[in-house]
Amino acid sequence: MQKILVANRGEIALRVMRSAREMGIKTVAVYSAADRNALHVRYADEAVYIGEAPSNQSYLVGEKIIDACKVTGAEAIHPGYGFLSENAAFARAVREAGLTLIGPSPEAMEVMGNKLSAKAAALKYNIPMVPGTEEAITDIAEAKQRATEVGFPILIKAAAGGGGKGMRIVNNADVFEEQMNLAVSEATSAFGDGSVFIERYVSSPRHIEIQVMGDTHGNIVYLFERDCSVQRRHQKVVEEAPSAILTPAIREEMGRCAVNVARSVNYTGAGTVEFIMDEQLNFYFLEMNTRLQVEHPVTELITGIDLVKEQINVARGEALSFTQEDLKISGHAMELRVYAEDPGNNFLPGTGTLQVYETPKGPGVRVDDCYEQGMEIPIYYDPMIAKLITYGKDREEAITRMVRAIDEYRITGIPTTLAFGKFVMQHEAFTSGNFDTHFVEKHFTPELLQNDNEEEALIAALIMDKLMQAPVANISQTAVAPVSNWVKNRRN
Amino acid sequence: MQKILVANRGEIALRVMRSAREMGIKTVAVYSAADRNALHVRYADEAVYIGEAPSNQSYLVGEKIIDACKVTGAEAIHPGYGFLSENAAFARAVREAGLTLIGPSPEAMEVMGNKLSAKAAALKYNIPMVPGTEEAITDIAEAKQRATEVGFPILIKAAAGGGGKGMRIVNNADVFEEQMNLAVSEATSAFGDGSVFIERYVSSPRHIEIQVMGDTHGNIVYLFERDCSVQRRHQKVVEEAPSAILTPAIREEMGRCAVNVARSVNYTGAGTVEFIMDEQLNFYFLEMNTRLQVEHPVTELITGIDLVKEQINVARGEALSFTQEDLKISGHAMELRVYAEDPGNNFLPGTGTLQVYETPKGPGVRVDDCYEQGMEIPIYYDPMIAKLITYGKDREEAITRMVRAIDEYRITGIPTTLAFGKFVMQHEAFTSGNFDTHFVEKHFTPELLQNDNEEEALIAALIMDKLMQAPVANISQTAVAPVSNWVKNRRN
Repeated sequence: MQKILVANRGEIALRVMRSAREMGIKTVAVYSAADRNALHVRYADEAVYIGEAPSNQSYLVGEKIIDACKVTGAEAIHPGYGFLSENAAFARAVREAGLTLIGPSPEAMEVMGNKLSAKAAALKYNIPMVPGTEEAITDIAEAKQRATEVGFPILIKAAAGGGGKGMRIVNNADVFEEQMNLAVSEATSAFGDGSVFIERYVSSPRHIEIQVMGDTHGNIVYLFERDCSVQRRHQKVVEEAPSAILTPAIREEMGRCAVNVARSVNYTGAGTVEFIMDEQLNFYFLEMNTRLQVEHPVTELITGIDLVKEQINVARGEALSFTQEDLKISGHAMELRVYAEDPGNNFLPGTGTLQVYETPKGPGVRVDDCYEQGMEIPIYYDPMIAKLITYGKDREEAITRMVRAIDEYRITGIPTTLAFGKFVMQHEAFTSGNFDTHFVEKHFTPELLQNDNEEEALIAALIMDKLMQAPVANISQTAVAPVSNWVKNRRN
Repeated sequence: MQKILVANRGEIALRVMRSAREMGIKTVAVYSAADRNALHVRYADEAVYIGEAPSNQSYLVGEKIIDACKVTGAEAIHPGYGFLSENAAFARAVREAGLTLIGPSPEAMEVMGNKLSAKAAALKYNIPMVPGTEEAITDIAEAKQRATEVGFPILIKAAAGGGGKGMRIVNNADVFEEQMNLAVSEATSAFGDGSVFIERYVSSPRHIEIQVMGDTHGNIVYLFERDCSVQRRHQKVVEEAPSAILTPAIREEMGRCAVNVARSVNYTGAGTVEFIMDEQLNFYFLEMNTRLQVEHPVTELITGIDLVKEQINVARGEALSFTQEDLKISGHAMELRVYAEDPGNNFLPGTGTLQVYETPKGPGVRVDDCYEQGMEIPIYYDPMIAKLITYGKDREEAITRMVRAIDEYRITGIPTTLAFGKFVMQHEAFTSGNFDTHFVEKHFTPELLQNDNEEEALIAALIMDKLMQAPVANISQTAVAPVSNWVKNRRN
């Protein structure tokens, strides 16, 4: 494998190219009109323009990606995450074009891409599922009996449903019939179908996922867990490895289950098996993501394994470079997704120019990003600016290092979620490890933000602007510094 | 300990402050006139001006440092490396002022600060020394007998000497008398004293040093070795941990010796015991450095220990947070010192403005520096711009990652040793591990440099300059990019 095309943009494109470069493999970037000057384009050995900014005219068009391989002679495609990374039809087209997709087989993608077939595959290995009805029911008496078997609290979900319609949490048997009636009538009026599923309601869920890797020689191993319970609207915002709550025995059991889920589809490459965990540390299979995960760096830091290099090795037919016994957890890693969103204003996405952009450095800090000072955040894509990742000998050090790194990060010109990240890191529920996926809605209000960083830098830039009678973008860092200090001192 | 003053500048001042900040300890910077806008000043909670740029008017004036503590209420001083860090008189003055020096006792500094007393202390523990005469001799017959006992090749050194005068390497007994006569007459005419020492000549030496840490409770441990054999004029340029050549048995034996050297002076805090090693892996005590070492990050990366935090813990009376048994080597780390020097022109130091300054990022890369784009490299101090440190699962990955990081580093406006570092990383003698302290003089000539990085960026900047009719410093990164790519493509 001499040349790889990276069918993605932003930080993950850069991330993949870095590993390829270290392996002596040439890289090809693809880019849309909006990404003409993007860092992933500059970083690649070659770059191919593939269309207008909207993804469905560029990054999502499989034929253009395959054509770009033919033009440049790239033999393999790394899809990153998102875009075409879990598209079985694309994976099949890549194979038919005589190219290699750095990822699992289209067959594995297909099975895991559908909730029902994924569940069926996992059940063959007795993987724990959230207890509940396997088929939709309408009869109230039957429903009540099933609910009692499952155990309260339970969740009633419309079989045809979505968007919370026809969904009811029922805490005990006394109110079951009343709630069931409401759910059925809601489902009937919304979807024309009153049948429902019943399953145990996990009131305080953790999101725990297991990283797995398989090769074409039949080896499958797990690289421990990531705890991604801090979410906002089902979007992960903070991830860490290891989890603050797993015991070695549960870790091993989850690992064994995850390997079996992967084995059910002869999985090759990097994948992630997601579980939901209740307060008693029971875990239940949710789904499998058949690609590299956004939060993969925390696993890299605690295992010392470069997951992208390993993906490439597997794709070129090599056996995994490690066995299950070789893998050990060292230290603790934490990742914060830094978004161009305003946490003080309902996380409204912001676009614009990065007037000041200085990333943190020093011990235990890794920044995976795709921007430089002066660049613009395009409106067409995910508003993630960077992944800020810290590593320490234990959880406490990873957290204090994250706070230090957040304080060092300097971004002006657009809103960011840095101050929100600092809020999470300093909240007692988070530092104690006692949190669930409702953390943000339970604990966060915009008034709690300490918006020092951005505010300070902004004030400094504005003052300098007046002083120098020049556009803000042209003010040098050196000049801003003393004013920033002056502002800081005035505030203390 | 609520507040620490950092009696240093540059990257090490910033490094120390980062750890203090993570520990919730306030920091005080001191600065000279030349460092008014330096990053370590911006980073600290408070900053005290201590005098003009020359070090003997600022950073070397102990009274000013102690006064700065009194003014700000700092209770402890971290001296970094260089400047006052190994000055026993300063350490004593700090103690007398009722302050804490984050370092060993003045007594330990004094013993180890003198070659003879250091050797005497080490001999109590039977630490291996380079075999040779313990006292100066003048008699030729006696000298020859001692030389034969020591074993050829031997080195004849003028007792009163220095600068290579009166120094002779003698390969066998046949030519001993002739060379001895020459050495004695040279020494007599140069120093008025013809007496000489005779010691074994290590023709192919490695520089291997052991990191030790002691506390005030009598614990002393070793944190493995660093191999610093790649040097230029006795200045280390590349350091790594672990060494490519040590066996576990020799590592343990060197560790035991280093702990004993530290024990001979009841050492507390972080220190380094330096050894010279011959081709048969015999090692001999050289000296002990009673401070944090420039190259300490490679040890931090393979052990997961923050050495600065541990220094602070020891200084406030705590026991070491780990035992010898807790310490394990994980992976491999490599450090390149990036200097503002021109390797194409006899490493002539260069000063000026960092017109473009972009540091590498991504997996396994740590940059300890103290500059931002637009800043100037002052002429008064060590011309080190940064320490570029990489970490990988093994030596090969640390090296390929270093090459990748060097390629990502973008500096224009001043010459740097980046291309020289790349030369080292790609040289067969280095990658094979088969090198000694003569590596640079044996293998390097300026014609071997691939100066892509700087040249490319410079050409791109110059072209943009013409295109935009604007000063180079004002060209935005975004605009330079396509031209840089264009230049790169033309060169391929």
